[in-house]
Amino acid sequence: MAEENIIFVGKKPTMNYVLAVVTQFNNNIEKIVIKARGKSISKAVDIAEITKHKFIKDAKYKDIKLETEILHGENGDSNVSSIEITMTR
Amino acid sequence: MAEENIIFVGKKPTMNYVLAVVTQFNNNIEKIVIKARGKSISKAVDIAEITKHKFIKDAKYKDIKLETEILHGENGDSNVSSIEITMTR
Repeated sequence: MAEENIIFVGKKPTMNYVLAVVTQFNNNIEKIVIKARGKSISKAVDIAEITKHKFIKDAKYKDIKLETEILHGENGDSNVSSIEITMTR
Repeated sequence: MAEENIIFVGKKPTMNYVLAVVTQFNNNIEKIVIKARGKSISKAVDIAEITKHKFIKDAKYKDIKLETEILHGENGDSNVSSIEITMTR
Protein backbone atom coordinates (compact mmCIF):
# COMPACT_ATOMS: atom_id res chain seq x y z
CA MET A 1 0.00 0.00 0.00
CA ALA A 2 1.33 3.42 -0.89
CA GLU A 3 2.51 5.43 2.09
CA GLU A 4 1.02 8.88 2.37
CA ASN A 5 2.30 11.82 4.37
CA ILE A 6 0.67 15.14 5.16
CA ILE A 7 2.53 18.43 5.48
CA PHE A 8 0.73 21.35 7.13
CA VAL A 9 1.96 24.74 5.92
CA GLY A 10 2.33 27.37 8.64
CA LYS A 11 4.58 30.30 9.45
CA LYS A 12 8.01 28.77 8.75
CA PRO A 13 9.99 29.83 5.65
CA THR A 14 8.93 28.27 2.34
CA MET A 15 12.20 26.35 1.90
CA ASN A 16 11.72 24.50 5.22
CA TYR A 17 8.57 22.90 3.82
CA VAL A 18 10.18 22.26 0.42
CA LEU A 19 12.97 20.40 2.22
CA ALA A 20 10.38 18.36 4.15
CA VAL A 21 8.57 17.37 0.94
CA VAL A 22 11.80 16.55 -0.93
CA THR A 23 13.10 14.48 2.00
CA GLN A 24 9.91 12.43 2.09
CA PHE A 25 9.97 11.76 -1.65
CA ASN A 26 13.61 10.69 -1.33
CA ASN A 27 12.59 8.31 1.47
CA ASN A 28 10.30 6.56 -1.03
CA ILE A 29 7.06 8.06 0.21
CA GLU A 30 4.98 7.93 -2.97
CA LYS A 31 2.20 10.34 -2.09
CA ILE A 32 2.44 13.62 -0.22
CA VAL A 33 -0.41 15.96 0.69
CA ILE A 34 0.39 19.65 1.26
CA LYS A 35 -2.33 21.39 3.28
CA ALA A 36 -2.75 25.11 3.97
CA ARG A 37 -5.39 27.60 5.06
CA GLY A 38 -5.95 31.31 4.46
CA LYS A 39 -2.91 33.35 3.53
CA SER A 40 -0.66 30.27 3.66
CA ILE A 41 -2.36 28.96 0.50
CA SER A 42 0.02 30.98 -1.73
CA LYS A 43 2.96 29.50 0.17
CA ALA A 44 1.62 25.96 -0.34
CA VAL A 45 1.52 26.55 -4.10
CA ASP A 46 5.10 27.89 -4.01
CA ILE A 47 6.23 24.80 -2.06
CA ALA A 48 4.62 22.45 -4.57
CA GLU A 49 5.97 24.30 -7.61
CA ILE A 50 9.52 24.64 -6.24
CA THR A 51 9.55 20.93 -5.35
CA LYS A 52 8.39 19.99 -8.83
CA HIS A 53 10.60 22.30 -10.87
CA LYS A 54 13.84 22.32 -8.87
CA PHE A 55 14.08 19.03 -7.00
CA ILE A 56 11.69 16.19 -7.89
CA LYS A 57 11.22 16.62 -11.62
CA ASP A 58 9.06 13.51 -12.00
CA ALA A 59 6.57 14.65 -9.32
CA LYS A 60 3.01 15.17 -10.54
CA TYR A 61 -0.16 16.75 -9.20
CA LYS A 62 -2.61 13.96 -8.51
CA ASP A 63 -5.35 16.08 -7.01
CA ILE A 64 -5.93 19.67 -5.94
CA LYS A 65 -8.87 20.34 -3.62
CA LEU A 66 -10.26 23.69 -2.48
CA GLU A 67 -12.53 23.81 0.56
CA THR A 68 -14.00 26.14 3.16
CA GLU A 69 -13.38 25.36 6.82
CA ILE A 70 -15.33 26.85 9.71
CA LEU A 71 -13.23 28.17 12.57
CA HIS A 72 -15.00 28.38 15.92
CA GLY A 73 -13.68 31.44 17.77
CA GLU A 74 -14.61 33.42 20.87
CA ASN A 75 -16.38 36.01 18.74
CA GLY A 76 -18.38 33.48 16.74
CA ASP A 77 -17.60 31.36 13.71
CA SER A 78 -15.57 32.48 10.72
CA ASN A 79 -14.87 30.87 7.37
CA VAL A 80 -11.42 30.23 5.99
CA SER A 81 -10.49 28.76 2.60
CA SER A 82 -8.13 25.82 2.41
CA ILE A 83 -6.15 23.92 -0.22
CA GLU A 84 -5.00 20.30 -0.37
CA ILE A 85 -2.35 19.57 -2.99
CA THR A 86 -1.69 15.86 -3.51
CA MET A 87 1.63 15.09 -5.21
CA THR A 88 2.89 11.71 -6.42
CA ARG A 89 5.98 10.54 -8.20
CA MET B 1 -20.06 26.68 -28.05
CA ALA B 2 -19.58 27.41 -24.37
CA GLU B 3 -18.52 30.95 -23.64
CA GLU B 4 -15.50 31.31 -21.41
CA ASN B 5 -14.38 34.32 -19.43
CA ILE B 6 -11.14 34.98 -17.58
CA ILE B 7 -10.88 37.00 -14.39
CA PHE B 8 -7.43 38.20 -13.30
CA VAL B 9 -7.13 38.65 -9.53
CA GLY B 10 -5.21 41.72 -8.44
CA LYS B 11 -5.29 44.25 -5.62
CA LYS B 12 -9.02 45.02 -5.44
CA PRO B 13 -11.09 43.70 -2.52
CA THR B 14 -12.13 40.03 -2.69
CA MET B 15 -15.84 40.82 -3.00
CA ASN B 16 -15.28 42.89 -6.17
CA TYR B 17 -14.02 39.75 -7.92
CA VAL B 18 -16.76 37.57 -6.39
CA LEU B 19 -19.32 39.99 -7.82
CA ALA B 20 -17.64 39.80 -11.24
CA VAL B 21 -17.75 35.97 -11.22
CA VAL B 22 -21.37 35.84 -9.99
CA THR B 23 -22.47 38.40 -12.59
CA GLN B 24 -20.91 36.38 -15.39
CA PHE B 25 -22.53 33.13 -14.25
CA ASN B 26 -25.87 34.96 -14.06
CA ASN B 27 -25.32 36.19 -17.64
CA ASN B 28 -25.19 32.54 -18.73
CA ILE B 29 -21.44 32.32 -19.11
CA GLU B 30 -20.90 28.60 -18.49
CA LYS B 31 -17.19 28.54 -17.81
CA ILE B 32 -15.11 31.02 -15.84
CA VAL B 33 -11.36 30.94 -15.27
CA ILE B 34 -9.96 32.72 -12.19
CA LYS B 35 -6.24 33.47 -12.56
CA ALA B 36 -3.83 34.76 -9.92
CA ARG B 37 -0.10 34.98 -9.21
CA GLY B 38 2.02 35.11 -6.06
CA LYS B 39 0.29 36.36 -2.92
CA SER B 40 -3.01 36.82 -4.79
CA ILE B 41 -3.36 33.03 -5.04
CA SER B 42 -4.98 32.88 -1.57
CA LYS B 43 -7.44 35.55 -2.68
CA ALA B 44 -8.31 33.58 -5.83
CA VAL B 45 -9.19 30.55 -3.69
CA ASP B 46 -11.36 32.76 -1.43
CA ILE B 47 -13.16 34.17 -4.49
CA ALA B 48 -13.87 30.69 -5.85
CA GLU B 49 -15.04 29.30 -2.50
CA ILE B 50 -17.26 32.29 -1.65
CA THR B 51 -18.84 32.14 -5.12
CA LYS B 52 -19.55 28.42 -4.73
CA HIS B 53 -20.84 28.42 -1.16
CA LYS B 54 -22.76 31.71 -0.96
CA PHE B 55 -23.97 32.56 -4.46
CA ILE B 56 -23.76 29.92 -7.22
CA LYS B 57 -24.43 26.70 -5.34
CA ASP B 58 -24.37 24.53 -8.48
CA ALA B 59 -20.92 25.79 -9.54
CA LYS B 60 -18.21 23.13 -9.74
CA TYR B 61 -14.45 23.05 -10.10
CA LYS B 62 -13.65 21.70 -13.54
CA ASP B 63 -9.90 22.10 -13.35
CA ILE B 64 -7.27 23.60 -11.04
CA LYS B 65 -3.81 24.23 -12.50
CA LEU B 66 -0.66 25.31 -10.71
CA GLU B 67 2.24 26.73 -12.70
CA THR B 68 5.43 28.73 -12.43
CA GLU B 69 5.78 31.88 -14.51
CA ILE B 70 9.03 33.67 -15.20
CA LEU B 71 8.97 37.43 -14.69
CA HIS B 72 11.62 39.38 -16.59
CA GLY B 73 12.70 42.31 -14.43
CA GLU B 74 15.47 44.91 -14.48
CA ASN B 75 17.47 42.87 -11.97
CA GLY B 76 17.13 39.58 -13.84
CA ASP B 77 14.43 36.96 -13.98
CA SER B 78 12.38 35.78 -11.05
CA ASN B 79 9.89 32.95 -10.68
CA VAL B 80 6.35 33.37 -9.45
CA SER B 81 3.75 30.67 -8.83
CA SER B 82 0.32 30.97 -10.42
CA ILE B 83 -3.08 29.30 -10.14
CA GLU B 84 -5.86 28.86 -12.70
CA ILE B 85 -9.21 27.81 -11.26
CA THR B 86 -11.77 26.79 -13.91
CA MET B 87 -15.37 26.85 -12.68
CA THR B 88 -18.46 25.64 -14.51
CA ARG B 89 -22.14 25.41 -13.66
